[in-house]
Amino acid sequence: MSKLCVRGFAVSLDGFGAGTDQGLEYPLGVRGPELMEWFFPTRVFQRMHGFGEDGETGVDNDCAERGFDNIGAWILGRNMFGPVRGPWPDDSWRGWWGEEPPYRVPVFVLTHYARAPLEMAGGTTFQFVTGGIHQALERARDAAGGRDIRLGGGAATIRQYLRAGLVEDLHLALRPVLLGRGESLFAGLDLDALGYECERTQAGERATHVFLRKRAA
Amino acid sequence: MSKLCVRGFAVSLDGFGAGTDQGLEYPLGVRGPELMEWFFPTRVFQRMHGFGEDGETGVDNDCAERGFDNIGAWILGRNMFGPVRGPWPDDSWRGWWGEEPPYRVPVFVLTHYARAPLEMAGGTTFQFVTGGIHQALERARDAAGGRDIRLGGGAATIRQYLRAGLVEDLHLALRPVLLGRGESLFAGLDLDALGYECERTQAGERATHVFLRKRAA
Repeated sequence: MSKLCVRGFAVSLDGFGAGTDQGLEYPLGVRGPELMEWFFPTRVFQRMHGFGEDGETGVDNDCAERGFDNIGAWILGRNMFGPVRGPWPDDSWRGWWGEEPPYRVPVFVLTHYARAPLEMAGGTTFQFVTGGIHQALERARDAAGGRDIRLGGGAATIRQYLRAGLVEDLHLALRPVLLGRGESLFAGLDLDALGYECERTQAGERATHVFLRKRAA
Repeated sequence: MSKLCVRGFAVSLDGFGAGTDQGLEYPLGVRGPELMEWFFPTRVFQRMHGFGEDGETGVDNDCAERGFDNIGAWILGRNMFGPVRGPWPDDSWRGWWGEEPPYRVPVFVLTHYARAPLEMAGGTTFQFVTGGIHQALERARDAAGGRDIRLGGGAATIRQYLRAGLVEDLHLALRPVLLGRGESLFAGLDLDALGYECERTQAGERATHVFLRKRAA
């Protein structure tokens, strides 16, 4: 059966998965881009966004690349999809990624406000789920065709799925920065009691890669 | 001038510097020893405790060894010194380390309860400071003879000194374990606003070594 996993989710040394003041100007919050600086230079990122450069290979690139293997659907929290809060004023916001987003599979966006599916170029369809995390997972599973489901974030969404024990494994990219404030991935979450353990860590060029998994029952 | 520094303080991936239920049976709390497993096998630990084995050399050992360079005094929170809480019932508790502790310099123990200094074999003297963190630092500075002062912990004591902006730099040993609960080093502490940054990280055999420092003013 397809599993729900987190891949390449970046956190600061002090445990933040995003900075403060997320919005149009700062999709990942103030200083959020520092979390992503392990990913931007990689070959997989450069090619994905068609920058026509080959990008860097190495541990960071390998880890990033494996994060796209065998993914049949994504789940995103609403703030990962855009800066709009509350009811959708209209259908003009179409995601951060332009008309051809890099997902190329169905993407289920958690929201409290219904909206018609959004078919983008290149295979990505954004589908808006108002029934909560279990419903999103069910629909993603139906859509994934036996492949895995990648939970993109943000931190609050990952925490919800972790609390429910629904995440099979996580690859975190631990960045050597201190954000000081923002959205904490770990605070108040007892990952040990929830059944998670660290499988291994691997030093990359710009991040330490941390692999967490559910312990065998 | 001698500086106040943290060396080789172990934290879990989820930011805990000690487990829960610290006491005589669990000096570092339940699962606390897992935090120390990067240190136990090193040559510096093995020699320090006279186990007559040479221990392992490598990155972990190098980092541990440098933590003892040029240290003229230590500061410890009371729970690092022992499991006794509240007023001292008598002078029978003499630390976790036997009659010849590995410090070999003056050690200033923060406590709310006065107690006569305790002279141990090998150069260690435990001195009990009731006047708070600034007084302990002042006395340690007087005793250190120009050498540095190592702040041994625990997490609560380090947090107090960080909040006061008194720590010059920190070497943390990030262990690939999830404690889930315990004493958090980071929670509620805005290290960015307090002026700290990550200088570098280094992969060791059993920990990722993280070097934090105060930004140049």
